[in-house]
Amino acid sequence: MFSLLKAYKKNDPSVKSLLEVLILFPGPKAIFFHRFSHFLYKLKLFFLARLISEVSRFITGIEIHPGAKVGKRFVIDHGVGVVIGETAVVGDDCLIYHGVTLGGVSKTKDFKRHPSLGDNVLVGAGAKVLGPIEIGNGVRIGANSVVTKSCGDGETIVGIPGKPTS
Amino acid sequence: MFSLLKAYKKNDPSVKSLLEVLILFPGPKAIFFHRFSHFLYKLKLFFLARLISEVSRFITGIEIHPGAKVGKRFVIDHGVGVVIGETAVVGDDCLIYHGVTLGGVSKTKDFKRHPSLGDNVLVGAGAKVLGPIEIGNGVRIGANSVVTKSCGDGETIVGIPGKPTS
Amino acid sequence: MFSLLKAYKKNDPSVKSLLEVLILFPGPKAIFFHRFSHFLYKLKLFFLARLISEVSRFITGIEIHPGAKVGKRFVIDHGVGVVIGETAVVGDDCLIYHGVTLGGVSKTKDFKRHPSLGDNVLVGAGAKVLGPIEIGNGVRIGANSVVTKSCGDGETIVGIPGKPTS
Repeated sequence: MFSLLKAYKKNDPSVKSLLEVLILFPGPKAIFFHRFSHFLYKLKLFFLARLISEVSRFITGIEIHPGAKVGKRFVIDHGVGVVIGETAVVGDDCLIYHGVTLGGVSKTKDFKRHPSLGDNVLVGAGAKVLGPIEIGNGVRIGANSVVTKSCGDGETIVGIPGKPTS
Repeated sequence: MFSLLKAYKKNDPSVKSLLEVLILFPGPKAIFFHRFSHFLYKLKLFFLARLISEVSRFITGIEIHPGAKVGKRFVIDHGVGVVIGETAVVGDDCLIYHGVTLGGVSKTKDFKRHPSLGDNVLVGAGAKVLGPIEIGNGVRIGANSVVTKSCGDGETIVGIPGKPTS
Repeated sequence: MFSLLKAYKKNDPSVKSLLEVLILFPGPKAIFFHRFSHFLYKLKLFFLARLISEVSRFITGIEIHPGAKVGKRFVIDHGVGVVIGETAVVGDDCLIYHGVTLGGVSKTKDFKRHPSLGDNVLVGAGAKVLGPIEIGNGVRIGANSVVTKSCGDGETIVGIPGKPTS
């Protein structure tokens, strides 16, 4: 919890105090709501879980499906317009910006439809990561890029469709 | 109305019940508000109409101008950041994702400034469809694409500027 | 103030009255809140300043850091998802659309991290302008473009990465 707030401070040079992050930033609020809604989801209280996530969306502009699994010190900067799907997985120490989608392309139930991010992944503002793909550790995805294929550790992906820079 | 909720359930594998769609999803709420604001708009009660659409934007994150004409079973998934302009037309059974804009490029009053979508059109997250263009039936537009030219039935459009894939 | 409302009316053919702009549009509200939060920021009341800007984000969907400097008649159309960073500068008579980011790419404190826009700049919906770059007077940036390099007066920039059209 405290380490999450410190991760925000480290990532954002405009932050003046941890109190500011705790009380004013949408990102930490969205994570707290999600910890609760994910707990309800695992108890199969789907309606209640979704209610919490919808309240969170209204307050923060960030929509995380109760089923999504997110790692430690997950920083969502600014946050408005972020959408994270039901079967998405996010590793530790990831940083995503406002407008990012971890979404699906398939309508098939009961399968993994959303991406899995490794650790230390950075996803730039407005980028869309779509489908049941694997994003390696330390990958950086550029703003407004659209990624629909898996990518290996340490790659930088840019464009529509997203391609590795070399 | 009931068919709209079923359309959401069909399109979104994460949906557990129609009640969830009705009460918790932003999309159906935005459509209900819009039916009302469009009715007021046709009575030339412009201020009141706009007030309703602004209340809807605040609650749902979806902004539909009261003048826009939308068809049956119009599904807006997630919805935050959607903007639909005054002279836009949307056919039946269309599906658009969060961050989509059906917008204008001209400042001339009294003309059609926004796009017309046929039936069964899918517009991916973050895509911008701009100008008084015609999007054919069954067209699919990729995430974050920018479409400024008309396109024929069944095409798939991707990129900035959006181009047909073949 | 009055000139700001008129600038909205001039830019948006769907506007029926100045009253509509004043009471219903998110953009003018965001500017009023920002004038106040920027005043508090200059008094080094950082927490209070940020509180005002967060209230503004909740109401309007527009996030302007209290430190940002914006010029006269700055029109933010629709506005949901706009993010403007702490050291960003916006000239006079600029027009930006919803989903636009004037953001940073560096984590270094105490330096200028965000872009400076000249006068009469237009930034299309969803475009991201990133880093301590200079955008000349009268520049037009296309929807969903990503701009990370300075550009001269009067240029039109499109794509990912954004390139001048000729």
